[in-house]
Amino acid sequence: MPGIWPALLTPLDAGLDIDHARFTALAHGLLASGCGGVTPFGTTGEGPSFSLDERRRAVDALVESGVAGPRILVSTSCAALPETLALTRHALRIGAWGCLMLPPFYLKGVSDQGIVDAYRYVIDGAADDRLRVMLYHIPQVAAVGLSHAVIAELMRLYPKTIVGIKDSQCDLAHSLALADAFMPGLTVHVGNELDLPALGRRGSTGAVSGLANFLPRLVHRLVAQPDAPQTAHDLERVRRLLGELGGYALIPALKGVMAHLSGDVTWLRVRPPLVALDAARYQALQNWLRTFPIDSKTD
Amino acid sequence: MPGIWPALLTPLDAGLDIDHARFTALAHGLLASGCGGVTPFGTTGEGPSFSLDERRRAVDALVESGVAGPRILVSTSCAALPETLALTRHALRIGAWGCLMLPPFYLKGVSDQGIVDAYRYVIDGAADDRLRVMLYHIPQVAAVGLSHAVIAELMRLYPKTIVGIKDSQCDLAHSLALADAFMPGLTVHVGNELDLPALGRRGSTGAVSGLANFLPRLVHRLVAQPDAPQTAHDLERVRRLLGELGGYALIPALKGVMAHLSGDVTWLRVRPPLVALDAARYQALQNWLRTFPIDSKTD
Repeated sequence: MPGIWPALLTPLDAGLDIDHARFTALAHGLLASGCGGVTPFGTTGEGPSFSLDERRRAVDALVESGVAGPRILVSTSCAALPETLALTRHALRIGAWGCLMLPPFYLKGVSDQGIVDAYRYVIDGAADDRLRVMLYHIPQVAAVGLSHAVIAELMRLYPKTIVGIKDSQCDLAHSLALADAFMPGLTVHVGNELDLPALGRRGSTGAVSGLANFLPRLVHRLVAQPDAPQTAHDLERVRRLLGELGGYALIPALKGVMAHLSGDVTWLRVRPPLVALDAARYQALQNWLRTFPIDSKTD
Repeated sequence: MPGIWPALLTPLDAGLDIDHARFTALAHGLLASGCGGVTPFGTTGEGPSFSLDERRRAVDALVESGVAGPRILVSTSCAALPETLALTRHALRIGAWGCLMLPPFYLKGVSDQGIVDAYRYVIDGAADDRLRVMLYHIPQVAAVGLSHAVIAELMRLYPKTIVGIKDSQCDLAHSLALADAFMPGLTVHVGNELDLPALGRRGSTGAVSGLANFLPRLVHRLVAQPDAPQTAHDLERVRRLLGELGGYALIPALKGVMAHLSGDVTWLRVRPPLVALDAARYQALQNWLRTFPIDSKTD
C-alpha cells in the first residue's frame, strides 16, 4: 500500500446525511494530487457515526464515480461483528485494496484471546483469499487496543491477510517497537504525521493521514523522502498546524480547514456527538489560517 | 417502570447467533417470577455486539412468543445515530414500554452539547409522544458518560420523554447525587445491586439488573422493601456472589451461573470479544455455586 491514503473527511448535507457529490469530489481531487488511494470511514471520517447502509452506499458512490476499487481502503470497523463482516464482504465485492479494522469497541477490558477471536470471526467469515486487513490501533479513541501478542497471533493465523497496522496511538516509541517486532512482515503506518519521517526511515511506505485531506503532497514527502532538505521545514509546518488545531476539537477543526480552503462552509457540518465550529471559532481559525498559507500545488 | 426489569443475558446457538427459543423462555420465566418487564440488549446482554437486524429480530421474537410490548424496555444504543433511531422506531412499533439509550460511544471526549445533540437526533427523529427514554450511564464501559448538565438539558427539552436514568457507574455517591438533583422528575435506577436499598429508600421503584436473570425476587426485595428484616441477609448474599463473580469476566460468569442453574451448558456461549468460561473455570464456578444454593422459588 505505497503512498498516502488520506483518512477521508466525510462531508454532510443539511440533514447531516453523507453528501456523496462532495465525498467523491474529495476522493478524486486527492487521487489527482498523487495519493495512492483513499480511506473512507476511519476515525477522522467519523466512520462509526454512520450506519451500515450509509457506509455501503457511500463506498458504492466512490466506485460509481470512477474511483477504482483497488484504490480504496475501507474502514469496516463496527461494534457488532456481523456488521464488520457485512462491510468487509462489501469491500471485497467492490474489489477494495483492503479493510482497516478495529477490534470491537464497546466492551472494555477484554482479553487478547477475545480480540483474536473477534478478528477470526470476520476473517474466517469472509473466507476470501483476496482479503487484506490493516489492523487499526487507536486506544485513546476506541479504548480497546492491540497488544503485540494479539498482532503476533493474527500474523501467525493469517500471514497473507494481515498486511499492516495503522498505529494511531501517537507515541513514536510505540510505533518503533511495532516496527522492531513486526516489520517487514507487516507494515506499520503511523497516524501522527510528525512521526512519519522516523517510520519512513524504517521502511514504512505510506500513511493513512487526516492532514492529507488538504496536505497530501507534504504528508507524502514526510514518509517517502524523510531525509530530504525540505523535511525540517515540512515538519515545522505540521507542528504549527497541529498546535493550532489542538485548540479545537480535531475533526470539526479539520472540517474547518476544508471549509476555509474550499470557500464552502457546508464542510463545517459534523454528525453528533461532534459539534461543528461555531461562527466565532470558525472566524478565529480562518484568521489563523491566513497566516498559514496552504499551496494546493505543492502541499 | 415499577419492579425489576432484568438486563437479559443473551443465549447463543452453536454459530454464536441468538437462540430465540432460549431467549424467549428466559423472558417468560422472569415475568412468571414477578418481574415488571425485561430489558434486552443492555451491556449484560452484550447488546452492542449484535447487529441491527439481530436486535430487531430478537425483540420481534419476544413479542411473537407472547411477551407484551409494554413489558419490554429495549436498549436501542448504537454507535451510529441512524441505527439507534431505527431501533427506537422499531421499539415504538412493537409498543415497547420504552428505550434504554446510551450516548454514541465511539468518539471520546465529546462535549455535553454534542451528547445533547445526539439524543435530540434520535428523539426528534422518532417524533412520537409515546416514546419513553431511560438514559443509560455506564462510563466504565461506554467511556462516554452523562453529566448533570446533559441530564438537566434533556429533561428541559423533553420533560415527558426522559423518564429515568440507569446509573451503572456503581458509585453510590454518584447515584444519590443524581437522586438529589433529579428525582422525582426522573427516576434513578442503580445498576449495582448492593446500592438498591439506599435508592429504594429514596423512592426508586425498580431496577434493570444483571443478577436478576437468576435472582429476580431477591433483587426486587432489595429495592421494594429496603428496610425489611431480610435485607441484611440478602445484601450479604449479593456481596458474596459479586465477590466470587469478580474473579471472572462478569458476563461470561453470569452465563456460567445460568448454565449451572439450568444444567444447559449452551448458556456458556458468548460472542467475541468476550471469551466463554473454559472447562476448568466453569468447574471452579460450579464448585463454588454448590456452596451458594439459589432457590428458584424465593430468590
